[in-house]
Amino acid sequence: MRIGVLGTGTVGRTLGSALLRSGHEVRLGSRTAGNEAAVAWAAEVGDAGPASEGSFADAAGFGELVINATAGATSLDALSLAGGEQLAGKVLVDVANPLDFSQGMPPRLSVCNGDSLGEQIQRAYRDVRVVKTLNTVTAAVMVDPGLVEGTHTIFMAGDDAAAKAQAGELLREFGWPQESILDLGDISAARGMEMYLPLWLRLYNATGTAVLNVEVRAAG
Amino acid sequence: MRIGVLGTGTVGRTLGSALLRSGHEVRLGSRTAGNEAAVAWAAEVGDAGPASEGSFADAAGFGELVINATAGATSLDALSLAGGEQLAGKVLVDVANPLDFSQGMPPRLSVCNGDSLGEQIQRAYRDVRVVKTLNTVTAAVMVDPGLVEGTHTIFMAGDDAAAKAQAGELLREFGWPQESILDLGDISAARGMEMYLPLWLRLYNATGTAVLNVEVRAAG
Repeated sequence: MRIGVLGTGTVGRTLGSALLRSGHEVRLGSRTAGNEAAVAWAAEVGDAGPASEGSFADAAGFGELVINATAGATSLDALSLAGGEQLAGKVLVDVANPLDFSQGMPPRLSVCNGDSLGEQIQRAYRDVRVVKTLNTVTAAVMVDPGLVEGTHTIFMAGDDAAAKAQAGELLREFGWPQESILDLGDISAARGMEMYLPLWLRLYNATGTAVLNVEVRAAG
Repeated sequence: MRIGVLGTGTVGRTLGSALLRSGHEVRLGSRTAGNEAAVAWAAEVGDAGPASEGSFADAAGFGELVINATAGATSLDALSLAGGEQLAGKVLVDVANPLDFSQGMPPRLSVCNGDSLGEQIQRAYRDVRVVKTLNTVTAAVMVDPGLVEGTHTIFMAGDDAAAKAQAGELLREFGWPQESILDLGDISAARGMEMYLPLWLRLYNATGTAVLNVEVRAAG
């Protein structure tokens, strides 16, 4: 499948490389075509599969499915540059966290409680099928859950069942077993998934590694 | 040990009963002495150990250690009625969540992001040694972690190491193995612990049971 990845940071490049390994064609998008990190990435991974780079609009137009891997603070801006017409009707997998570093560390959330970035995106692009997932783990774990010991849970939220099924296929290609994928319901569940981040940051401090996740366990 | 439990709801009564079974003396406190639920509780559990009830101030003064099991929206008010002089120097185990139901379901948090209820309490009572814990599980699981299958994690936060050690003893009495107790650091970690609640509510919806928890897993 042709997949456009918006964002050329660690998350975007890590996802892009893993998608190539899964046999997809990937175009990494950034604010301006020719972004240094994106060009270097495309050159480096060229052997693994068809990799290209371009603007947000180039990547969004290229993808049959699009992934938002931009920093949460800039996601709405990036999607605006990508253009609603390039995204219309497509599945948009949103892995971003609305972290606000403007008041120092630890970051706060720029939106939370009664709203979420996932919902903001869905409201701004009504004909895009937004699926929130993967935002609760670090980039390396997103594409290689086996790095964390044992079984553990990855969450998913979105209003469109078929879109969630498609996102689930990508997760399984990354190595997430079907029984580890927990559908939390409609896109408003993005609130809980994003508001988990402050706890994740403390888990990172307490365990000394970002290679961590949680497993949901219920009554036996 | 003499323990004062503020709050006569399910959480307060469940904790009170479990503390009696562990051999503690327990006084349940409410807004007014003679609270119907508290009187019924004391009569019902009398065989298990020395149980009594009274006002918030009665319970706080009685306890060598005090537990805040009031609804988060009323916790600061309840502690004010308990009185700073009754709490001074004591360990205060705060298990409350600042849930705000005023805008309907699901509840929002009345404080989050840059602050937390745990921190608000610690700021209001500087000579009280606040430990935030147990707020991430339902009452039944607080006192019987074995209800959830396998091992799973309970979080703790607070500025005073000795106070956290004392709270840890209570957790072990409830059946939490030492290796399941994860100290997240100072009281500001209460932000993450409380902001987890919106995710917990979606886990409850998705699994169909409140008898659930998460296990933290890190790199092998």
